[in-house]
Amino acid sequence: MAVVGVGLIGGSIGLALRHSQRAERIVGIGRDPGRLTDARRLGSIDEFTTDIGQGVAEAEVIVVCTPVTRIARDLLVAARHANSEALITDAGSTKREIVEQAEADPRIAGMFVGAHPLAGSERRGARHASPDLFEGRMCVLTPTEKTPRERLERARAFWSRLGCRILEMDPTSHDEALARTSHLPHAVAAALAAIVPEELLPLAAGAYRDGTRVALSDSALWAGIFLANRRPILDALEAYRDQLSLFERALRAEDEVSLRAWWDASRSQRSNYSEPPSVDT
Amino acid sequence: MAVVGVGLIGGSIGLALRHSQRAERIVGIGRDPGRLTDARRLGSIDEFTTDIGQGVAEAEVIVVCTPVTRIARDLLVAARHANSEALITDAGSTKREIVEQAEADPRIAGMFVGAHPLAGSERRGARHASPDLFEGRMCVLTPTEKTPRERLERARAFWSRLGCRILEMDPTSHDEALARTSHLPHAVAAALAAIVPEELLPLAAGAYRDGTRVALSDSALWAGIFLANRRPILDALEAYRDQLSLFERALRAEDEVSLRAWWDASRSQRSNYSEPPSVDT
Repeated sequence: MAVVGVGLIGGSIGLALRHSQRAERIVGIGRDPGRLTDARRLGSIDEFTTDIGQGVAEAEVIVVCTPVTRIARDLLVAARHANSEALITDAGSTKREIVEQAEADPRIAGMFVGAHPLAGSERRGARHASPDLFEGRMCVLTPTEKTPRERLERARAFWSRLGCRILEMDPTSHDEALARTSHLPHAVAAALAAIVPEELLPLAAGAYRDGTRVALSDSALWAGIFLANRRPILDALEAYRDQLSLFERALRAEDEVSLRAWWDASRSQRSNYSEPPSVDT
Repeated sequence: MAVVGVGLIGGSIGLALRHSQRAERIVGIGRDPGRLTDARRLGSIDEFTTDIGQGVAEAEVIVVCTPVTRIARDLLVAARHANSEALITDAGSTKREIVEQAEADPRIAGMFVGAHPLAGSERRGARHASPDLFEGRMCVLTPTEKTPRERLERARAFWSRLGCRILEMDPTSHDEALARTSHLPHAVAAALAAIVPEELLPLAAGAYRDGTRVALSDSALWAGIFLANRRPILDALEAYRDQLSLFERALRAEDEVSLRAWWDASRSQRSNYSEPPSVDT
């Protein structure tokens, strides 16, 4: 088992695999020996290397957990050095670009199944990893017509073993959906955090706290996600702005009936959401 | 002690007073005998009446916890029937209109101190009340030059006894601050909830859950707050839209440096926030 990128997600995959009590060796692959040493000390991995080629050579499953800006490159290097029987999967929050780039290379296409486990946190690094991070969470697999059935079945088994529930979608539909359910909500949280200056924070309560929590996430990570899913996020932003305009218009007109109708429609949509156990991001 | 409006806030005030173990009779005043009966059964109040005049007549402290659209009217009726030594305070989320309307009447002005305890929840009603709702929360008092010092001191003592920390501001500054720290965050949550249709909810995780939680709040309550604080909320909305435009411009230009700078500025602002114990709304 090889895990490329041993942060919160990669580290948690290592811990979850260990807790599932099947004998296997988990090789962590990264660029920073310090962080890899930490991950080994924390029990996420058994051994590590900074050389992807060497790390993946004997793996049955290779899971790439680097930021979305690096996944396509890491998949390419991993596929070149992997055993031809290996399954390669990833944990990127965007899928269309990654899957397209991966499948442009026939060698990767024959081993790869795109994946996005909906788990994470505004916290980073293997020291925040948890064996339960994936328990009950959705993992979206994004197979295409190029995806071998046998690899798809192994990907289902791999992510299920970590505790995930599996959903399958095409990469474009995934990205359009996640623009609304995750990416825009992150942007919106940052915009809200920006307009509350420090001196007003003693007057902030739950709506601020919850509405801005994910603005604590890492900027490099999120700039990468925004850029990799630019068009769907811009579309979602337009729909969001239309909602703000409905609110603004009703408020300017002091139109209580429209304000309440607008609020009730949102409230009704929100009330359909039922929370999975202990979601973080 | 008279509590006008025995919902989440009024009910919690009753419970908190009881838990503070000073002998006093708490009279609940409301319009719905069924809800008043519930509040008495739950221990929030000792007795009740649907007649404000009768309910407040012997009270030393009268606290008006009705929705912001009704507070000014209730203050007027309460002041007319109150003992001239009584302190009258309220728990409204907006202050300028309420304080102006109250102070237009010299009798109210001589007894009244505007207050806003930053506590609440998207849940409503006395059955969600808790004696700890105010513990460690900020309560903003909004005295003006018309406010008698003696009443201000009694208002400080009253809200402190419930567990609140006290902050004093003029009513207009309060409303401008809360537009950013609470009112706009509620509108923004509803706008976000509106753009995620039911079929995408399985793909929603923490950013959606937290960013939309307060959209479950009551529409009548919030329409009232929005209308009572219209101008400051529209100003806050404009500042918020400017932030969305910065994000959009950087994203359209595929400008990673600007995206990261924008995110880091928000992240830095958010990192100054430290959570009071168990905040809900």
